[in-house]
Amino acid sequence: MLELLRKHGPLSRGELGKHCGLSRTTLYDILAELVSSGAVVAASQQDGPRGRGRPAETLTLNPDAGQAIGIDFARRGLHVAAVNLAHEIVGTASEPHAAGLPWEQRAELAWRLVRTLTGGGLELGALSAIGVGVVGPVGPPLDPEAEAEAHAENDPASGPEDEVPHPVQLLLRERFGVPVLLDNNTRLAALGESIWGAAAGGQDVLYLRLSHGVGGGLVVGGSLHRGAYGLSGEFGHITVDQDGAPCDCGGTGCLETVASIRAVLESYRAAGGRAEDVPELVKATRAGDAPALAVLAEVGAAIGHVLAAVCNAIGPSVIVIGGELAETGAALIEPIERALGAQVMPVSRHRVSLRRATLGEVAGALGGIALVLHESPLLSRYPAGPDLAPGLLRQEDPMNQSRHVTARGAATDGRTAKEGS
Amino acid sequence: MLELLRKHGPLSRGELGKHCGLSRTTLYDILAELVSSGAVVAASQQDGPRGRGRPAETLTLNPDAGQAIGIDFARRGLHVAAVNLAHEIVGTASEPHAAGLPWEQRAELAWRLVRTLTGGGLELGALSAIGVGVVGPVGPPLDPEAEAEAHAENDPASGPEDEVPHPVQLLLRERFGVPVLLDNNTRLAALGESIWGAAAGGQDVLYLRLSHGVGGGLVVGGSLHRGAYGLSGEFGHITVDQDGAPCDCGGTGCLETVASIRAVLESYRAAGGRAEDVPELVKATRAGDAPALAVLAEVGAAIGHVLAAVCNAIGPSVIVIGGELAETGAALIEPIERALGAQVMPVSRHRVSLRRATLGEVAGALGGIALVLHESPLLSRYPAGPDLAPGLLRQEDPMNQSRHVTARGAATDGRTAKEGS
Repeated sequence: MLELLRKHGPLSRGELGKHCGLSRTTLYDILAELVSSGAVVAASQQDGPRGRGRPAETLTLNPDAGQAIGIDFARRGLHVAAVNLAHEIVGTASEPHAAGLPWEQRAELAWRLVRTLTGGGLELGALSAIGVGVVGPVGPPLDPEAEAEAHAENDPASGPEDEVPHPVQLLLRERFGVPVLLDNNTRLAALGESIWGAAAGGQDVLYLRLSHGVGGGLVVGGSLHRGAYGLSGEFGHITVDQDGAPCDCGGTGCLETVASIRAVLESYRAAGGRAEDVPELVKATRAGDAPALAVLAEVGAAIGHVLAAVCNAIGPSVIVIGGELAETGAALIEPIERALGAQVMPVSRHRVSLRRATLGEVAGALGGIALVLHESPLLSRYPAGPDLAPGLLRQEDPMNQSRHVTARGAATDGRTAKEGS
Repeated sequence: MLELLRKHGPLSRGELGKHCGLSRTTLYDILAELVSSGAVVAASQQDGPRGRGRPAETLTLNPDAGQAIGIDFARRGLHVAAVNLAHEIVGTASEPHAAGLPWEQRAELAWRLVRTLTGGGLELGALSAIGVGVVGPVGPPLDPEAEAEAHAENDPASGPEDEVPHPVQLLLRERFGVPVLLDNNTRLAALGESIWGAAAGGQDVLYLRLSHGVGGGLVVGGSLHRGAYGLSGEFGHITVDQDGAPCDCGGTGCLETVASIRAVLESYRAAGGRAEDVPELVKATRAGDAPALAVLAEVGAAIGHVLAAVCNAIGPSVIVIGGELAETGAALIEPIERALGAQVMPVSRHRVSLRRATLGEVAGALGGIALVLHESPLLSRYPAGPDLAPGLLRQEDPMNQSRHVTARGAATDGRTAKEGS
């Protein structure tokens, strides 16, 4: 029910019945419990087009029931975003900091930034959680159950044997008092772009970020794909030249060795160009500087080769290119498009759309929120029946990866989430 | 409930309650409806380890409620498999035929083969469906809703505007009188191997088939991945040589141009070898024939390069190599392993396991069954409440792709599915 209301917005009981196919009795039982728990509120539909008879009562998620917070701990700065449970973005904010700032200070900075964002009136109700992006691989696979259980047991160090909580998870859990879901921040940017950005509504999205590192993420069937061991979307470490330069990952000739900011600037300088950073390169490109265009054409061809391979394997409908290097625009995008045109299977070529990212630096924070909305056990909570002990119950759904429910009592406090920043 | 029982086998009401988190009242309502419909049966647990008190009554799927049939319409032969709803394989069978046999005759052959397989006593009860694999791209994405609706409306030509039913779908629907779900047979082999074969239990599996064509499939989070437009797993059409040979797909230098049976035999003959077919090549390889080993080393390197790229993008736990060319064994597998070792990200290398396929030619038929068990709306059916009209209702689950329920009355006839062939 909560998922249907999250997806469709307000629905009447009849519409909910059509969507879920449950019997009327069962449906009304479930809805009554959700309304009494405060997770769902009923409202008369005043402005429907029908205009006669008694207006149908619609049900909607309770916007006061809590907020979801996303935080992206990037290398040199912090980005935060907040939405209420009606999926309305309450606000976003960013603050740069020195690289290597200790986690304690970054967590404190996050706390202050989030409170600023929400006007100091942060209300993390019963349905809330925090989705956090961090640099580097996150694995073993994210386990929202374990995270929620650790929180429920008030034991910040607990979790499955093979999962060591990230330091920021412990710090934020203590500071905010809610479960903290973690993923790689580039993968979260992929999720953000697929919901609020360039690929909004896309169910199968390939996202590539061209920055100091080259990474990416895959949205598969509307969900973030993590892979069997928490490592996926590593497009930057696909080999493009088996005799190429050594890569930071330990491999040889990875895409990152030719398409990272450093690699591109070095190639440009080797070709006689002068640029200390990406804005200077962008400026040269816009001025039609020949070495800049030649370098970007070569880099774009390598990127397109890798993207075409992944396209043939996965069949996405949208490819999103983000990161600072995407600012070079057509000089980079057109060579990518040419390579895709040559190397994506002919039968698929016209079905894939290549787009520039639109969310900028808050993509990862927004993706953190999407992580919460999609995966938090607290957002799939279902009120407890009399025979269920308090605590978190695991709902195993063999068809669709596991989802979760809590059996804890409702704890909404009726106060309103602040809008705007 | 049906999904839980499919996954876990017999469960008590208390165990079902723990898994699903529903309130006792709701749970018991649902279970009562399922038992009265014949989809689920109750049995006393006689041999539990507890040994005292009244034995807990367990609930299980009704094994008499129907069978699931998988049929693989390969280019030159037919493979069928049948399981009952307890996931027990009733049997498998194959029959070769001339390439290009008309669909009418292939459908009749399938009908005869399935009846032989089930001892003539085929019972396709209310919960049954057929999963069918065919050669070539299947798209737009498989739509079990539309298929089930077309069946319910007894209108074999109906369906969404952009979906033209495959001829064999219409023929089998008429012959067997049940819904027919369709997918590419190589993708279905990937699903079969991930459930019953080399990657049994694997949630993230990459399957490559080296045959007359080079294709494959991806299992992502335990489900077959189809991609945004029904084209995925096209590993054979990933470019390995931008200046290479033209490919049947219209591209240039695809993996298939170097790793198909024809391409490998041609390379072998160009290197001075003599082999008319794969068995002869296998024989030469086992005899240590140098040109054969050299050709397979080169082909394996190209295959490994492509697989490594896909691994870095997707992060599977298992790679399965199937198809006739896999019979060449270590001569091909070891070069693939070497390329994976060099090109999969170092942090991931030890987490990916490379295996030979184990299901042989019935992999696709078994995958067809898995398709039915995973996706058939009839297997997710939920008995109708009094306010629901007969017919199929669509259950939209925004988090997990759509699932379906039927609101039709139960129609099990109590007869037993035949075991063995």
